[in-house]
Amino acid sequence: MTRPPSDIEDLIGLMARLPGLGPRSARRAVLQLVKKRGQLLLPLSEAMAKVGQTARECLTCGNIGTSDTCDICADPRRATGQICVVEDVADLWAMERAGVFRGRYHVLGGTLSALDDIGPEELRIPRLKSRVAEETVSEIILALPATIDGQTTAHYIAGELPGITVTSLAQGVPVGGELDYLDDGTITAALNARKAL
Amino acid sequence: MTRPPSDIEDLIGLMARLPGLGPRSARRAVLQLVKKRGQLLLPLSEAMAKVGQTARECLTCGNIGTSDTCDICADPRRATGQICVVEDVADLWAMERAGVFRGRYHVLGGTLSALDDIGPEELRIPRLKSRVAEETVSEIILALPATIDGQTTAHYIAGELPGITVTSLAQGVPVGGELDYLDDGTITAALNARKAL
Repeated sequence: MTRPPSDIEDLIGLMARLPGLGPRSARRAVLQLVKKRGQLLLPLSEAMAKVGQTARECLTCGNIGTSDTCDICADPRRATGQICVVEDVADLWAMERAGVFRGRYHVLGGTLSALDDIGPEELRIPRLKSRVAEETVSEIILALPATIDGQTTAHYIAGELPGITVTSLAQGVPVGGELDYLDDGTITAALNARKAL
Repeated sequence: MTRPPSDIEDLIGLMARLPGLGPRSARRAVLQLVKKRGQLLLPLSEAMAKVGQTARECLTCGNIGTSDTCDICADPRRATGQICVVEDVADLWAMERAGVFRGRYHVLGGTLSALDDIGPEELRIPRLKSRVAEETVSEIILALPATIDGQTTAHYIAGELPGITVTSLAQGVPVGGELDYLDDGTITAALNARKAL
């Protein structure tokens, strides 16, 4: 058996460590890269080197930006007193795409998990408490995943912030959602949180 | 709405062009890269730059190697007179992993497709004909996909090589396959090609 050149095997091994790519799709991606050397391989290599040099975490909220304070924390118009707590930066981007929240964020970097041995110190929870002490905070909005770990984290954070208004995103039927396709938990939550018309 | 830094948006845009990654998984992959800058982002950037410099197509068979003649074409032990014709390099790698074929390859770079306007000149079919004229070829083994386009390509190649033994991989029940899970076409092919025990 003749193996692919070692440079290519190294690249496949690294690509396979990306989320969403297994060994097989990593091989396909690398072949595509080699085919499109000028349009894809070299630009990707350069874009990665560039991000490696410029990207850094915001020291305040954990968002990814290009300086120690991210664009959102640096924008005085967003000092509304509301802080939206999210699990990771992808969730922050999702909130920003919705375009409805005008305050600032706090990226935990995960959720509490007894199974994975993740406690408050592994997350950005102490930093959240110090922000609440330093900044003028009117409301903490928890936008954490509706999983066991996410809800455990939400309750833990609420308990750590006595005297602060802590709210959480509503659970219910997604817009455009058909009841027939929803799980029992969502239907139960939507029924319990029903509203008068 | 505050957008991610432009370097990161550029990288997401490039990653989303890889096969198997859409916009959402490209965002997740990039966040993972930024998190693992030292272990993943910078090594990937370097591995890509290296492959961009070293990788080239074999002028004989179309395999990917590091010189104008790939390791398989350069190995005199593989001059068995058999040439295995595959659609792309991923299929060549799959054959090599099986470790059962000892001859050389010919990578077409695709299959004939009226819909996608791909004719023989777009593939490495003229090169295959010139190899058959130049080399001592005892058998052409077609290992093309069992799709309409793959089989059209197989019949076209067989017609272009009069006087040469052209064979094709057998169709039938995969090893470990259960009849209940197979499609009708595979069962039909396996029944038609049944063998005496």
